Amino acid sequence: MRKNAAEIKIIKSPAALQKFSKKMQAQGKSIGLVPTMGALHKGHASLIEMSTKSNDITIVSIFVNPAQFGANEDFAIYPRRLKADVKLCATAGANIIFAPEPQAMYPLPLQTFVRNPSIEHLYCGKYRPTHFAGVLSVVAKLFNISLPSKAYFGEKDFQQLHLIKKMVHDLNFPVKIIGTKTIREKSGLAMSSRNEYMTQKEREAASSIYAGMITAKKTGKSLAELKTIIQKKIQQAGGKIQYIEIANKSDLMPAKTTKNSVILLACYFGKTRLIDHLEL
Amino acid sequence: MRKNAAEIKIIKSPAALQKFSKKMQAQGKSIGLVPTMGALHKGHASLIEMSTKSNDITIVSIFVNPAQFGANEDFAIYPRRLKADVKLCATAGANIIFAPEPQAMYPLPLQTFVRNPSIEHLYCGKYRPTHFAGVLSVVAKLFNISLPSKAYFGEKDFQQLHLIKKMVHDLNFPVKIIGTKTIREKSGLAMSSRNEYMTQKEREAASSIYAGMITAKKTGKSLAELKTIIQKKIQQAGGKIQYIEIANKSDLMPAKTTKNSVILLACYFGKTRLIDHLEL
Repeated sequence: MRKNAAEIKIIKSPAALQKFSKKMQAQGKSIGLVPTMGALHKGHASLIEMSTKSNDITIVSIFVNPAQFGANEDFAIYPRRLKADVKLCATAGANIIFAPEPQAMYPLPLQTFVRNPSIEHLYCGKYRPTHFAGVLSVVAKLFNISLPSKAYFGEKDFQQLHLIKKMVHDLNFPVKIIGTKTIREKSGLAMSSRNEYMTQKEREAASSIYAGMITAKKTGKSLAELKTIIQKKIQQAGGKIQYIEIANKSDLMPAKTTKNSVILLACYFGKTRLIDHLEL
Repeated sequence: MRKNAAEIKIIKSPAALQKFSKKMQAQGKSIGLVPTMGALHKGHASLIEMSTKSNDITIVSIFVNPAQFGANEDFAIYPRRLKADVKLCATAGANIIFAPEPQAMYPLPLQTFVRNPSIEHLYCGKYRPTHFAGVLSVVAKLFNISLPSKAYFGEKDFQQLHLIKKMVHDLNFPVKIIGTKTIREKSGLAMSSRNEYMTQKEREAASSIYAGMITAKKTGKSLAELKTIIQKKIQQAGGKIQYIEIANKSDLMPAKTTKNSVILLACYFGKTRLIDHLEL
Protein backbone atom coordinates (compact mmCIF):
# COMPACT_ATOMS: atom_id res chain seq x y z
CA MET A 1 0.00 0.00 0.00
CA ARG A 2 1.32 3.41 -1.02
CA LYS A 3 2.60 5.39 1.97
CA ASN A 4 4.02 8.80 2.81
CA ALA A 5 7.74 9.02 3.50
CA ALA A 6 6.86 9.91 7.11
CA GLU A 7 5.15 6.55 7.60
CA ILE A 8 8.35 4.62 6.88
CA LYS A 9 10.39 3.65 9.90
CA ILE A 10 14.15 3.93 9.40
CA ILE A 11 16.18 1.57 11.57
CA LYS A 12 19.96 1.88 11.71
CA SER A 13 20.89 -0.64 14.39
CA PRO A 14 21.15 -4.35 13.47
CA ALA A 15 20.26 -5.32 17.06
CA ALA A 16 17.16 -3.11 17.01
CA LEU A 17 15.95 -4.58 13.71
CA GLN A 18 16.60 -8.15 14.87
CA LYS A 19 14.61 -7.46 18.04
CA PHE A 20 11.75 -6.00 16.01
CA SER A 21 11.78 -8.93 13.58
CA LYS A 22 11.77 -11.49 16.42
CA LYS A 23 8.75 -9.73 17.89
CA MET A 24 6.95 -9.80 14.53
CA GLN A 25 7.81 -13.51 14.18
CA ALA A 26 6.46 -14.33 17.64
CA GLN A 27 3.22 -12.60 16.57
CA GLY A 28 3.05 -14.86 13.53
CA LYS A 29 3.65 -12.00 11.08
CA SER A 30 5.45 -12.69 7.80
CA ILE A 31 8.41 -10.55 6.78
CA GLY A 32 9.57 -9.84 3.23
CA LEU A 33 13.11 -8.52 2.71
CA VAL A 34 14.38 -6.55 -0.28
CA PRO A 35 18.17 -6.22 0.06
CA THR A 36 19.57 -3.26 -1.88
CA MET A 37 22.57 -0.92 -2.00
CA GLY A 38 20.25 2.08 -2.38
CA ALA A 39 20.14 4.51 -5.31
CA LEU A 40 16.83 2.82 -5.96
CA HIS A 41 15.18 2.63 -9.38
CA LYS A 42 12.13 1.02 -10.97
CA GLY A 43 13.72 -2.42 -10.72
CA HIS A 44 13.85 -2.10 -6.94
CA ALA A 45 10.33 -0.65 -6.83
CA SER A 46 8.98 -3.74 -8.56
CA LEU A 47 10.69 -5.98 -5.96
CA ILE A 48 9.25 -3.93 -3.08
CA GLU A 49 5.75 -3.95 -4.58
CA MET A 50 5.95 -7.71 -5.01
CA SER A 51 6.97 -8.12 -1.36
CA THR A 52 4.16 -5.94 -0.01
CA LYS A 53 1.64 -8.16 -1.81
CA SER A 54 2.62 -11.34 0.02
CA ASN A 55 4.06 -10.31 3.39
CA ASP A 56 2.72 -8.52 6.46
CA ILE A 57 5.89 -6.44 6.79
CA THR A 58 8.30 -5.39 4.03
CA ILE A 59 11.84 -4.42 5.01
CA VAL A 60 14.10 -2.73 2.46
CA SER A 61 17.77 -2.83 3.43
CA ILE A 62 19.93 -0.04 2.03
CA PHE A 63 23.58 -0.79 2.59
CA VAL A 64 26.54 -0.16 0.32
CA ASN A 65 28.46 -3.17 1.54
CA PRO A 66 32.22 -2.52 1.66
CA ALA A 67 32.95 -6.28 1.88
CA GLN A 68 31.78 -6.88 -1.69
CA PHE A 69 33.89 -4.17 -3.34
CA GLY A 70 37.47 -4.75 -4.45
CA ALA A 71 40.21 -2.27 -3.58
CA ASN A 72 40.07 -0.48 -6.96
CA GLU A 73 36.31 -0.52 -7.41
CA ASP A 74 33.60 2.11 -6.98
CA PHE A 75 32.76 1.81 -3.27
CA ALA A 76 33.59 5.46 -2.52
CA ILE A 77 31.60 6.90 -5.43
CA TYR A 78 28.65 4.49 -5.40
CA PRO A 79 25.55 6.75 -5.34
CA ARG A 80 24.05 7.35 -1.88
CA ARG A 81 20.77 9.30 -1.57
CA LEU A 82 18.72 8.05 1.35
CA LYS A 83 16.10 10.79 1.14
CA ALA A 84 15.05 9.92 -2.41
CA ASP A 85 15.23 6.22 -1.57
CA VAL A 86 12.85 6.69 1.38
CA LYS A 87 10.33 8.30 -0.97
CA LEU A 88 10.56 5.45 -3.47
CA CYS A 89 10.19 2.86 -0.68
CA ALA A 90 7.15 4.69 0.67
CA THR A 91 5.49 4.89 -2.71
CA ALA A 92 6.15 1.19 -3.27
CA GLY A 93 4.60 0.37 0.13
CA ALA A 94 7.55 -0.72 2.29
CA ASN A 95 7.24 -0.53 6.09
CA ILE A 96 10.84 -0.46 7.27
CA ILE A 97 14.12 0.78 5.84
CA PHE A 98 17.19 -0.81 7.37
CA ALA A 99 20.07 1.59 6.73
CA PRO A 100 23.04 0.62 8.92
CA GLU A 101 26.46 2.24 8.91
CA PRO A 102 29.38 -0.02 7.93
CA GLN A 103 30.71 0.00 11.51
CA ALA A 104 27.36 -1.29 12.78
CA MET A 105 27.45 -4.17 10.31
CA TYR A 106 31.15 -4.84 10.89
CA PRO A 107 31.93 -3.75 14.48
CA LEU A 108 34.96 -6.08 14.37
CA PRO A 109 36.91 -7.17 11.30
CA LEU A 110 34.89 -9.94 9.63
CA GLN A 111 36.55 -13.35 10.13
CA THR A 112 33.65 -15.60 9.18
CA PHE A 113 32.70 -15.76 5.52
CA VAL A 114 30.09 -17.64 3.53
CA ARG A 115 31.74 -18.90 0.37
CA ASN A 116 31.01 -21.02 -2.67
CA PRO A 117 34.40 -22.11 -3.99
CA SER A 118 32.76 -23.98 -6.90
CA ILE A 119 31.28 -20.86 -8.53
CA GLU A 120 32.65 -17.73 -6.83
CA HIS A 121 35.71 -17.58 -9.12
CA LEU A 122 33.77 -17.86 -12.41
CA TYR A 123 32.31 -15.09 -14.64
CA CYS A 124 32.18 -11.86 -12.58
CA GLY A 125 34.17 -13.65 -9.85
CA LYS A 126 37.14 -14.03 -12.17
CA TYR A 127 37.48 -10.23 -12.25
CA ARG A 128 36.16 -9.55 -8.73
CA PRO A 129 37.81 -12.32 -6.72
CA THR A 130 36.47 -11.37 -3.26
CA HIS A 131 33.09 -10.08 -4.47
CA PHE A 132 30.84 -13.09 -3.95
CA ALA A 133 32.25 -13.99 -0.51
CA GLY A 134 31.33 -10.41 0.44
CA VAL A 135 27.86 -10.76 -1.09
CA LEU A 136 27.01 -14.13 0.48
CA SER A 137 28.29 -13.07 3.90
CA VAL A 138 26.29 -9.84 3.94
CA VAL A 139 23.15 -11.58 2.66
CA ALA A 140 23.51 -14.18 5.44
CA LYS A 141 23.84 -11.27 7.89
CA LEU A 142 20.79 -9.49 6.46
CA PHE A 143 18.73 -12.70 6.65
CA ASN A 144 19.75 -13.25 10.28
CA ILE A 145 19.01 -9.64 11.21
CA SER A 146 15.70 -9.27 9.31
CA LEU A 147 14.38 -12.85 9.69
CA PRO A 148 12.35 -12.78 6.47
CA SER A 149 10.27 -15.69 5.20
CA LYS A 150 10.74 -14.35 1.66
CA ALA A 151 13.55 -12.31 0.11
CA TYR A 152 13.48 -10.59 -3.29
CA PHE A 153 16.37 -10.21 -5.72
CA GLY A 154 16.56 -9.05 -9.32
CA GLU A 155 17.74 -11.50 -11.98
CA LYS A 156 19.91 -8.66 -13.22
CA ASP A 157 22.69 -9.95 -10.95
CA PHE A 158 22.25 -13.44 -12.34
CA GLN A 159 25.31 -15.10 -10.82
CA GLN A 160 24.60 -13.46 -7.46
CA LEU A 161 21.01 -14.73 -7.48
CA HIS A 162 22.20 -18.24 -8.33
CA LEU A 163 24.76 -18.19 -5.49
CA ILE A 164 22.17 -16.90 -3.01
CA LYS A 165 19.67 -19.60 -3.97
CA LYS A 166 22.42 -22.22 -3.60
CA MET A 167 23.40 -20.79 -0.19
CA VAL A 168 19.81 -20.96 1.01
CA HIS A 169 19.58 -24.56 -0.17
CA ASP A 170 22.97 -25.65 1.16
CA LEU A 171 22.68 -23.94 4.56
CA ASN A 172 18.89 -24.44 4.99
CA PHE A 173 18.07 -20.76 5.54
CA PRO A 174 14.32 -20.59 6.32
CA VAL A 175 13.82 -18.08 3.51
CA LYS A 176 12.19 -18.42 0.12
CA ILE A 177 14.16 -16.58 -2.58
CA ILE A 178 12.09 -14.81 -5.20
CA GLY A 179 14.00 -13.79 -8.32
CA THR A 180 12.37 -11.28 -10.63
CA LYS A 181 12.87 -10.43 -14.28
CA THR A 182 15.29 -7.66 -15.12
CA ILE A 183 13.61 -4.31 -15.68
CA ARG A 184 14.95 -2.54 -18.77
CA GLU A 185 14.89 0.97 -20.12
CA LYS A 186 13.09 1.49 -23.45
CA SER A 187 16.44 1.11 -25.20
CA GLY A 188 16.85 -2.35 -23.69
CA LEU A 189 19.58 -1.26 -21.26
CA ALA A 190 19.14 -3.14 -17.96
CA MET A 191 18.28 -0.77 -15.12
CA SER A 192 21.15 -0.36 -12.71
CA SER A 193 22.21 2.23 -10.15
CA ARG A 194 25.52 2.32 -12.00
CA ASN A 195 23.90 3.55 -15.25
CA GLU A 196 24.05 7.08 -13.90
CA TYR A 197 27.86 6.98 -14.04
CA MET A 198 27.51 7.15 -17.84
CA THR A 199 27.22 10.14 -20.13
CA GLN A 200 24.09 10.31 -22.29
CA LYS A 201 26.14 9.16 -25.24
CA GLU A 202 27.59 6.15 -23.40
CA ARG A 203 24.13 5.26 -22.18
CA GLU A 204 22.79 5.19 -25.72
CA ALA A 205 25.75 3.13 -26.89
CA ALA A 206 25.21 0.67 -24.02
CA SER A 207 21.87 -0.36 -25.52
CA SER A 208 24.04 -2.46 -27.85
CA ILE A 209 24.43 -4.99 -25.01
CA TYR A 210 20.82 -6.10 -25.04
CA ALA A 211 20.49 -5.66 -28.80
CA GLY A 212 23.55 -7.86 -29.29
CA MET A 213 22.21 -10.60 -27.04
CA ILE A 214 18.80 -10.55 -28.76
CA THR A 215 20.41 -10.80 -32.23
CA ALA A 216 22.68 -13.59 -31.03
CA LYS A 217 19.74 -15.52 -29.57
CA LYS A 218 17.80 -15.18 -32.84
CA THR A 219 20.57 -15.88 -35.33
CA GLY A 220 23.52 -17.50 -33.53
CA LYS A 221 23.92 -21.24 -34.03
CA SER A 222 26.94 -22.33 -32.00
CA LEU A 223 28.15 -21.05 -28.63
CA ALA A 224 31.15 -19.46 -30.37
CA GLU A 225 28.95 -17.75 -32.97
CA LEU A 226 26.64 -16.36 -30.29
CA LYS A 227 29.58 -14.84 -28.44
CA THR A 228 31.06 -13.34 -31.59
CA ILE A 229 27.77 -11.65 -32.55
CA ILE A 230 27.48 -9.99 -29.13
CA GLN A 231 31.14 -9.05 -29.03
CA LYS A 232 31.00 -7.32 -32.42
CA LYS A 233 27.82 -5.42 -31.57
CA ILE A 234 29.22 -4.10 -28.30
CA GLN A 235 32.61 -3.25 -29.75
CA GLN A 236 31.03 -1.45 -32.74
CA ALA A 237 29.17 0.74 -30.24
CA GLY A 238 32.43 1.59 -28.47
CA GLY A 239 32.17 -0.84 -25.54
CA LYS A 240 35.01 -2.93 -24.13
CA ILE A 241 34.25 -6.57 -23.35
CA GLN A 242 35.31 -7.98 -19.97
CA TYR A 243 33.78 -11.41 -20.57
CA ILE A 244 31.00 -13.08 -22.55
CA GLU A 245 30.21 -16.61 -21.39
CA ILE A 246 27.35 -19.06 -21.72
CA ALA A 247 26.43 -21.13 -18.65
CA ASN A 248 23.90 -23.82 -17.77
CA LYS A 249 20.88 -22.25 -16.10
CA SER A 250 20.67 -25.13 -13.60
CA ASP A 251 24.18 -25.18 -12.10
CA LEU A 252 25.85 -22.16 -13.72
CA MET A 253 28.71 -24.30 -14.96
CA PRO A 254 30.07 -23.42 -18.45
CA ALA A 255 27.50 -24.62 -21.01
CA LYS A 256 28.25 -27.19 -23.71
CA THR A 257 25.14 -26.35 -25.77
CA THR A 258 22.72 -23.42 -25.95
CA LYS A 259 19.94 -25.58 -24.47
CA ASN A 260 18.73 -24.41 -21.03
CA SER A 261 21.57 -21.97 -20.85
CA VAL A 262 22.10 -18.29 -20.21
CA ILE A 263 24.39 -15.66 -21.68
CA LEU A 264 26.39 -13.85 -18.98
CA LEU A 265 28.54 -10.85 -19.75
CA ALA A 266 30.33 -7.83 -18.37
CA CYS A 267 31.62 -4.91 -20.36
CA TYR A 268 32.69 -1.31 -20.03
CA PHE A 269 31.24 1.82 -21.59
CA GLY A 270 33.68 4.54 -20.68
CA LYS A 271 34.67 3.84 -17.09
CA THR A 272 31.35 2.20 -16.23
CA ARG A 273 31.28 -1.56 -15.79
CA LEU A 274 27.92 -3.06 -16.79
CA ILE A 275 26.66 -6.63 -16.51
CA ASP A 276 23.77 -8.29 -18.28
CA HIS A 277 22.36 -11.69 -19.15
CA LEU A 278 19.83 -13.37 -21.42
CA GLU A 279 18.31 -16.80 -21.08
CA LEU A 280 18.47 -18.94 -24.20
CA MET B 1 11.50 -32.43 33.20
CA ARG B 2 12.40 -36.11 33.17
CA LYS B 3 10.52 -38.02 30.45
CA ASN B 4 10.04 -41.56 29.19
CA ALA B 5 11.76 -42.47 25.94
CA ALA B 6 8.28 -42.81 24.41
CA GLU B 7 7.55 -39.12 25.06
CA ILE B 8 10.46 -37.98 22.89
CA LYS B 9 9.61 -37.17 19.30
CA ILE B 10 12.24 -38.27 16.79
CA ILE B 11 12.32 -36.17 13.62
CA LYS B 12 14.47 -37.26 10.69
CA SER B 13 13.54 -34.73 8.02
CA PRO B 14 15.16 -31.26 8.03
CA ALA B 15 12.07 -29.78 6.32
CA ALA B 16 9.75 -31.30 8.94
CA LEU B 17 11.82 -29.94 11.83
CA GLN B 18 12.08 -26.50 10.24
CA LYS B 19 8.29 -26.44 9.80
CA PHE B 20 7.78 -27.48 13.42
CA SER B 21 10.27 -24.86 14.66
CA LYS B 22 8.63 -22.09 12.60
CA LYS B 23 5.29 -23.05 14.14
CA MET B 24 6.75 -22.91 17.66
CA GLN B 25 8.32 -19.52 16.86
CA ALA B 26 5.03 -18.12 15.60
CA GLN B 27 3.50 -19.21 18.91
CA GLY B 28 6.19 -17.29 20.77
CA LYS B 29 7.83 -20.43 22.16
CA SER B 30 11.57 -20.46 22.83
CA ILE B 31 13.71 -23.26 21.44
CA GLY B 32 16.99 -24.54 22.89
CA LEU B 33 19.28 -26.60 20.65
CA VAL B 34 21.93 -29.06 21.79
CA PRO B 35 23.93 -30.12 18.70
CA THR B 36 25.66 -33.50 19.17
CA MET B 37 27.12 -36.39 17.21
CA GLY B 38 25.35 -38.89 19.50
CA ALA B 39 27.02 -41.51 21.72
CA LEU B 40 25.84 -39.23 24.47
CA HIS B 41 27.46 -39.05 27.91
CA LYS B 42 27.13 -37.00 31.10
CA GLY B 43 28.62 -33.95 29.40
CA HIS B 44 25.76 -33.93 26.89
CA ALA B 45 23.21 -34.60 29.64
CA SER B 46 24.35 -31.48 31.49
CA LEU B 47 23.87 -29.39 28.30
CA ILE B 48 20.38 -30.82 27.75
CA GLU B 49 19.37 -30.21 31.37
CA MET B 50 20.58 -26.64 31.12
CA SER B 51 18.53 -26.10 27.97
CA THR B 52 15.33 -27.51 29.46
CA LYS B 53 15.61 -24.99 32.31
CA SER B 54 15.47 -21.93 30.10
CA ASN B 55 13.58 -22.90 26.94
CA ASP B 56 10.05 -24.06 26.17
CA ILE B 57 11.32 -26.72 23.75
CA THR B 58 14.67 -28.52 23.77
CA ILE B 59 15.89 -30.10 20.55
CA VAL B 60 18.88 -32.45 20.62
CA SER B 61 20.41 -33.02 17.19
CA ILE B 62 22.22 -36.32 16.73
CA PHE B 63 24.19 -36.30 13.50
CA VAL B 64 27.60 -37.74 12.75
CA ASN B 65 28.48 -35.08 10.22
CA PRO B 66 30.56 -36.48 7.34
CA ALA B 67 31.62 -32.96 6.29
CA GLN B 68 33.73 -32.46 9.41
CA PHE B 69 35.74 -35.70 9.12
CA GLY B 70 38.90 -36.01 7.07
CA ALA B 71 39.40 -38.89 4.64
CA ASN B 72 41.52 -40.95 7.07
CA GLU B 73 39.57 -40.16 10.22
CA ASP B 74 37.04 -42.12 12.28
CA PHE B 75 33.75 -41.28 10.51
CA ALA B 76 32.95 -44.94 9.75
CA ILE B 77 33.63 -46.21 13.27
CA TYR B 78 32.31 -43.25 15.27
CA PRO B 79 29.89 -44.81 17.80
CA ARG B 80 26.22 -44.74 16.79
CA ARG B 81 23.57 -45.94 19.28
CA LEU B 82 20.35 -44.00 18.85
CA LYS B 83 18.35 -46.15 21.27
CA ALA B 84 20.58 -45.44 24.27
CA ASP B 85 20.81 -41.78 23.21
CA VAL B 86 17.01 -41.46 23.17
CA LYS B 87 16.91 -42.74 26.74
CA LEU B 88 19.54 -40.26 27.91
CA CYS B 89 17.73 -37.39 26.14
CA ALA B 90 14.45 -38.42 27.77
CA THR B 91 15.97 -38.59 31.23
CA ALA B 92 17.56 -35.18 30.73
CA GLY B 93 14.19 -33.74 29.66
CA ALA B 94 14.58 -33.06 25.90
CA ASN B 95 11.45 -32.82 23.74
CA ILE B 96 12.74 -33.53 20.23
CA ILE B 97 15.59 -35.54 18.78
CA PHE B 98 16.64 -34.47 15.31
CA ALA B 99 18.40 -37.48 13.75
CA PRO B 100 18.75 -36.93 9.99
CA GLU B 101 20.54 -39.23 7.56
CA PRO B 102 23.53 -37.71 5.74
CA GLN B 103 21.62 -37.66 2.43
CA ALA B 104 18.85 -35.61 4.06
CA MET B 105 21.39 -33.05 5.28
CA TYR B 106 23.36 -33.11 2.02
CA PRO B 107 20.87 -33.98 -0.76
CA LEU B 108 23.30 -32.36 -3.23
CA PRO B 109 27.06 -31.99 -2.85
CA LEU B 110 27.66 -29.03 -0.52
CA GLN B 111 28.99 -26.01 -2.44
CA THR B 112 28.41 -23.30 0.16
CA PHE B 113 30.65 -23.32 3.22
CA VAL B 114 30.96 -21.14 6.30
CA ARG B 115 34.63 -20.55 6.95
CA ASN B 116 36.94 -18.65 9.24
CA PRO B 117 40.26 -18.40 7.39
CA SER B 118 41.85 -16.52 10.33
CA ILE B 119 41.53 -19.43 12.79
CA GLU B 120 40.43 -22.58 10.96
CA HIS B 121 44.02 -23.60 10.12
CA LEU B 122 45.40 -23.25 13.67
CA TYR B 123 45.64 -25.85 16.48
CA CYS B 124 43.31 -28.75 15.58
CA GLY B 125 42.81 -27.19 12.14
CA LYS B 126 46.49 -27.64 11.33
CA TYR B 127 45.97 -31.42 11.48
CA ARG B 128 42.35 -31.47 10.31
CA PRO B 129 42.38 -28.89 7.49
CA THR B 130 38.72 -29.24 6.40
CA HIS B 131 37.32 -29.90 9.88
CA PHE B 132 36.16 -26.45 10.96
CA ALA B 133 34.60 -25.55 7.60
CA GLY B 134 32.57 -28.74 8.05
CA VAL B 135 31.69 -27.82 11.63
CA LEU B 136 30.66 -24.21 10.94
CA SER B 137 28.63 -25.19 7.88
CA VAL B 138 26.70 -27.91 9.71
CA VAL B 139 26.11 -25.69 12.74
CA ALA B 140 24.74 -22.97 10.44
CA LYS B 141 22.47 -25.62 8.89
CA LEU B 142 21.33 -26.86 12.31
CA PHE B 143 20.59 -23.29 13.43
CA ASN B 144 18.56 -22.62 10.28
CA ILE B 145 16.66 -25.89 10.61
CA SER B 146 16.00 -25.75 14.38
CA LEU B 147 15.64 -21.95 14.79
CA PRO B 148 16.84 -21.90 18.40
CA SER B 149 17.12 -18.79 20.53
CA LYS B 150 19.84 -20.52 22.56
CA ALA B 151 22.31 -23.25 21.61
CA TYR B 152 24.50 -25.23 24.00
CA PHE B 153 28.05 -26.43 23.38
CA GLY B 154 30.67 -27.94 25.67
CA GLU B 155 33.93 -26.05 26.24
CA LYS B 156 35.62 -29.40 25.67
CA ASP B 157 35.87 -28.49 21.97
CA PHE B 158 37.35 -25.14 22.84
CA GLN B 159 38.43 -24.00 19.37
CA GLN B 160 35.10 -25.13 17.93
CA LEU B 161 33.17 -23.16 20.55
CA HIS B 162 35.28 -20.07 19.84
CA LEU B 163 34.65 -20.38 16.08
CA ILE B 164 30.91 -20.85 16.59
CA LYS B 165 30.68 -17.79 18.86
CA LYS B 166 32.61 -15.79 16.27
CA MET B 167 30.32 -17.06 13.47
CA VAL B 168 27.24 -16.02 15.42
CA HIS B 169 28.73 -12.58 16.00
CA ASP B 170 30.03 -12.09 12.46
CA LEU B 171 26.91 -13.36 10.67
CA ASN B 172 24.36 -12.06 13.23
CA PHE B 173 22.68 -15.41 13.87
CA PRO B 174 19.75 -14.72 16.24
CA VAL B 175 21.07 -17.35 18.66
CA LYS B 176 22.73 -17.02 22.05
CA ILE B 177 25.61 -19.45 22.44
CA ILE B 178 25.98 -21.02 25.89
CA GLY B 179 29.32 -22.72 26.52
CA THR B 180 29.54 -25.04 29.49
CA LYS B 181 32.46 -26.33 31.53
CA THR B 182 34.03 -29.61 30.48
CA ILE B 183 32.72 -32.57 32.46
CA ARG B 184 35.53 -34.88 33.58
CA GLU B 185 35.80 -38.42 34.85
CA LYS B 186 37.13 -38.87 38.40
CA SER B 187 40.59 -39.35 36.93
CA GLY B 188 40.42 -35.92 35.30
CA LEU B 189 40.00 -37.31 31.79
CA ALA B 190 37.62 -35.07 29.83
CA MET B 191 34.44 -36.93 28.90
CA SER B 192 34.27 -37.69 25.19
CA SER B 193 32.44 -40.16 23.01
CA ARG B 194 35.85 -41.12 21.67
CA ASN B 195 37.09 -42.31 25.10
CA GLU B 196 35.41 -45.65 24.46
CA TYR B 197 37.87 -46.35 21.64
CA MET B 198 40.53 -46.81 24.35
CA THR B 199 41.48 -49.90 26.35
CA GLN B 200 41.14 -49.60 30.13
CA LYS B 201 44.93 -49.20 30.34
CA GLU B 202 45.04 -46.39 27.78
CA ARG B 203 42.16 -44.68 29.53
CA GLU B 204 44.06 -44.68 32.82
CA ALA B 205 47.20 -43.41 31.12
CA ALA B 206 45.17 -40.63 29.44
CA SER B 207 44.48 -39.07 32.85
CA SER B 208 48.03 -37.71 32.49
CA ILE B 209 46.63 -35.04 30.12
CA TYR B 210 44.66 -33.21 32.78
CA ALA B 211 47.24 -33.94 35.49
CA GLY B 212 49.94 -32.50 33.26
CA MET B 213 47.97 -29.33 32.56
CA ILE B 214 47.18 -28.82 36.25
CA THR B 215 50.85 -29.25 37.22
CA ALA B 216 51.91 -26.89 34.45
CA LYS B 217 49.40 -24.26 35.55
CA LYS B 218 50.65 -24.51 39.16
CA THR B 219 54.38 -24.66 38.58
CA GLY B 220 55.15 -23.54 35.02
CA LYS B 221 56.53 -20.02 34.64
CA SER B 222 57.06 -19.37 30.94
CA LEU B 223 54.97 -20.54 28.00
CA ALA B 224 57.80 -22.87 26.98
CA GLU B 225 58.08 -24.33 30.49
CA LEU B 226 54.34 -24.96 30.69
CA LYS B 227 54.40 -26.84 27.41
CA THR B 228 57.42 -28.92 28.45
CA ILE B 229 55.79 -30.00 31.73
CA ILE B 230 52.66 -31.21 29.93
CA GLN B 231 54.63 -32.86 27.17
CA LYS B 232 56.76 -34.86 29.61
CA LYS B 233 53.78 -35.95 31.68
CA ILE B 234 51.86 -37.22 28.64
CA GLN B 235 54.89 -38.88 27.08
CA GLN B 236 55.81 -40.59 30.36
CA ALA B 237 52.32 -42.11 30.40
CA GLY B 238 52.81 -43.44 26.88
CA GLY B 239 50.92 -40.74 24.98
CA LYS B 240 52.02 -39.16 21.72
CA ILE B 241 51.71 -35.37 21.42
CA GLN B 242 50.08 -33.90 18.30
CA TYR B 243 50.28 -30.30 19.52
CA ILE B 244 50.44 -28.30 22.73
CA GLU B 245 49.79 -24.59 22.25
CA ILE B 246 48.80 -21.65 24.40
CA ALA B 247 46.31 -19.14 22.95
CA ASN B 248 44.65 -15.90 24.03
CA LYS B 249 41.20 -16.64 25.42
CA SER B 250 39.77 -13.56 23.70
CA ASP B 251 40.79 -14.07 20.06
CA LEU B 252 42.42 -17.54 20.11
CA MET B 253 45.58 -16.15 18.52
CA PRO B 254 48.88 -17.64 19.79
CA ALA B 255 49.51 -16.18 23.29
CA LYS B 256 52.55 -14.11 24.18
CA THR B 257 52.04 -14.48 27.95
CA THR B 258 50.08 -16.85 30.21
CA LYS B 259 47.70 -14.04 31.18
CA ASN B 260 44.09 -14.58 30.00
CA SER B 261 45.19 -17.52 27.96
CA VAL B 262 44.26 -21.16 27.50
CA ILE B 263 46.25 -24.33 26.95
CA LEU B 264 45.04 -26.25 23.89
CA LEU B 265 46.32 -29.70 23.04
CA ALA B 266 45.75 -32.86 21.07
CA CYS B 267 47.48 -36.18 21.67
CA TYR B 268 47.12 -39.88 20.98
CA PHE B 269 46.79 -42.76 23.40
CA GLY B 270 47.03 -45.84 21.23
CA LYS B 271 45.05 -45.01 18.12
CA THR B 272 42.69 -42.63 19.94
CA ARG B 273 43.08 -38.91 19.33
CA LEU B 274 42.08 -36.85 22.37
CA ILE B 275 41.83 -33.09 22.80
CA ASP B 276 41.75 -31.05 25.99
CA HIS B 277 42.25 -27.52 27.29
CA LEU B 278 42.77 -25.59 30.50
CA GLU B 279 42.30 -21.88 31.10
CA LEU B 280 45.24 -20.15 32.76
